[in-house]
Amino acid sequence: MRRRIIGVMGPGAADRGAEETAFTLGRLIAAEGWVVLTGGRPVGVMDAASRGAKTVDGSITVGILPSDHETAEVSDAVDIAIFTNMGDARNAINVQSSDVVVACGAASPGTLSEVALALKAGKHVVLVNASSTTEAFLKSCGHGRVHVAAEAMEAVQQVRRLIAESA
Amino acid sequence: MRRRIIGVMGPGAADRGAEETAFTLGRLIAAEGWVVLTGGRPVGVMDAASRGAKTVDGSITVGILPSDHETAEVSDAVDIAIFTNMGDARNAINVQSSDVVVACGAASPGTLSEVALALKAGKHVVLVNASSTTEAFLKSCGHGRVHVAAEAMEAVQQVRRLIAESA
Amino acid sequence: MRRRIIGVMGPGAADRGAEETAFTLGRLIAAEGWVVLTGGRPVGVMDAASRGAKTVDGSITVGILPSDHETAEVSDAVDIAIFTNMGDARNAINVQSSDVVVACGAASPGTLSEVALALKAGKHVVLVNASSTTEAFLKSCGHGRVHVAAEAMEAVQQVRRLIAESA
Amino acid sequence: MRRRIIGVMGPGAADRGAEETAFTLGRLIAAEGWVVLTGGRPVGVMDAASRGAKTVDGSITVGILPSDHETAEVSDAVDIAIFTNMGDARNAINVQSSDVVVACGAASPGTLSEVALALKAGKHVVLVNASSTTEAFLKSCGHGRVHVAAEAMEAVQQVRRLIAESA
Repeated sequence: MRRRIIGVMGPGAADRGAEETAFTLGRLIAAEGWVVLTGGRPVGVMDAASRGAKTVDGSITVGILPSDHETAEVSDAVDIAIFTNMGDARNAINVQSSDVVVACGAASPGTLSEVALALKAGKHVVLVNASSTTEAFLKSCGHGRVHVAAEAMEAVQQVRRLIAESA
Repeated sequence: MRRRIIGVMGPGAADRGAEETAFTLGRLIAAEGWVVLTGGRPVGVMDAASRGAKTVDGSITVGILPSDHETAEVSDAVDIAIFTNMGDARNAINVQSSDVVVACGAASPGTLSEVALALKAGKHVVLVNASSTTEAFLKSCGHGRVHVAAEAMEAVQQVRRLIAESA
Repeated sequence: MRRRIIGVMGPGAADRGAEETAFTLGRLIAAEGWVVLTGGRPVGVMDAASRGAKTVDGSITVGILPSDHETAEVSDAVDIAIFTNMGDARNAINVQSSDVVVACGAASPGTLSEVALALKAGKHVVLVNASSTTEAFLKSCGHGRVHVAAEAMEAVQQVRRLIAESA
Repeated sequence: MRRRIIGVMGPGAADRGAEETAFTLGRLIAAEGWVVLTGGRPVGVMDAASRGAKTVDGSITVGILPSDHETAEVSDAVDIAIFTNMGDARNAINVQSSDVVVACGAASPGTLSEVALALKAGKHVVLVNASSTTEAFLKSCGHGRVHVAAEAMEAVQQVRRLIAESA
């Protein structure tokens, strides 16, 4: 009965390319029947991924917010908002709760912390829209758990393969 | 689009009466179209509330677990498991994320911490299956935000009223 | 080499009697050579306990702040400020880190959450300046780990006894 | 009255070179009168930095542990142990609480998460004993807040300069 959860992480200040990829990621992940988990704020990759997911009937989007319930700004495309009131410590919760983490876009400090925390927690991470330098560096830290995809569709195929291998 | 979330808190080691009340609470809350949020473990009030909710078509249950994804024991009736790996600090997340908190059963230390954290976060709390001593004490701490219900149906009516008043 | 840590918890909005007791608690705890741990803000019981401790040569005061390093207001009497940026979830850290918890003053929701989290974590709690209703209620939840003292000196004697018994 | 806190972060499984650098870092930081803050476990860089600090009279070492007070293994060289029971989410607390962060040794996922969280929190980070690839990558993410030192003495000089500039 428990739903698979795929985390989509990426900068709040993302470029248009990363946001388009994130939107497609959200749509394709939701089409698999998986829950899309993001940082929940109404900006950048997290907002785009949630909006993409909500184009799919019956989709569920979860946002793990850094703020409290009174001050948090939440993406309109988030179904279930979890208010941690814990700032970036919530990044550790995001990755613990994701079956696989997809990191989309440039290596901002916040996204980098989520990739690092995911690896520390033993999770697999799929990078998409990252620079080749970022890909090379994170692969060198990742003990075989960092994977690279050229675009959203390939990223979701990798997620499917990783889930099948872990089952 | 965002879903209302009602937290059902109570002891893991609950008596049969509290579990029956929790089951009915979960069923009635889900029937309102609200998400049922619990501590997620496969015991006591949290398990019973989630199981009650899952008797309703289209219901969603969220469990906020104290453990990590590898060691956590999760109720089979939880749809979406959030692994905080934060022990009882996750109690603060449970109450921040709930529109209203329903506390069911005896005043165990864990449940008491959730009621206290809910009041600190400015949330309303509905007590059901509590002793009259517990009711009186928590009302005296609660600045008008502690409410008492005789059984599950009345608790859900109070939740409905509190939501209407806050809208 | 590791230092004993005694947590002094109590309302930020405390009455004069609770603040005087907290000041004496801080002084007596520091005089034993123990670290005084509080919530770190410049108000109420936490401020008074830290100020009392700093009247003792060589004392160390630790404040576990709910806010981040940029916005936190910190008591001048805190030597070591730990910025959790976690709101009231930091209450769980306060009690985990204290060998014994002393709760001073009225049962505000914040203080009540710390007492409850301490009991959940298996810690002993000494109440001082609490109402008789609060004492009776918390004793009924405390599985023998809630103790009552009439004033600061007696509270510190109880802490000394509890530490001796656990050694 | 409040003490400056310098965080020394690095892998638990460190090579001998990183441990020797960490020991010297701890000694030199303590000699400045600053508190040495680490992850508190009895291994690798955190243990070595704390042991180095404790060779200095009057030094204070703080360890922010990932575990609870019952199961945590704590370095003998930690004076003040803070038990977060929050796993790697405590990394966010480590960097929030440090005036400057020194990262020592290879880019393990845990250390990488601390560097990233430090940058996200607006902190300056000094790298020592890192590979040139790690240095280049982190500088590219760091918005001018990543600094490189060849060895411990130079790292502490950089910390001193960063503190002077922020004062």
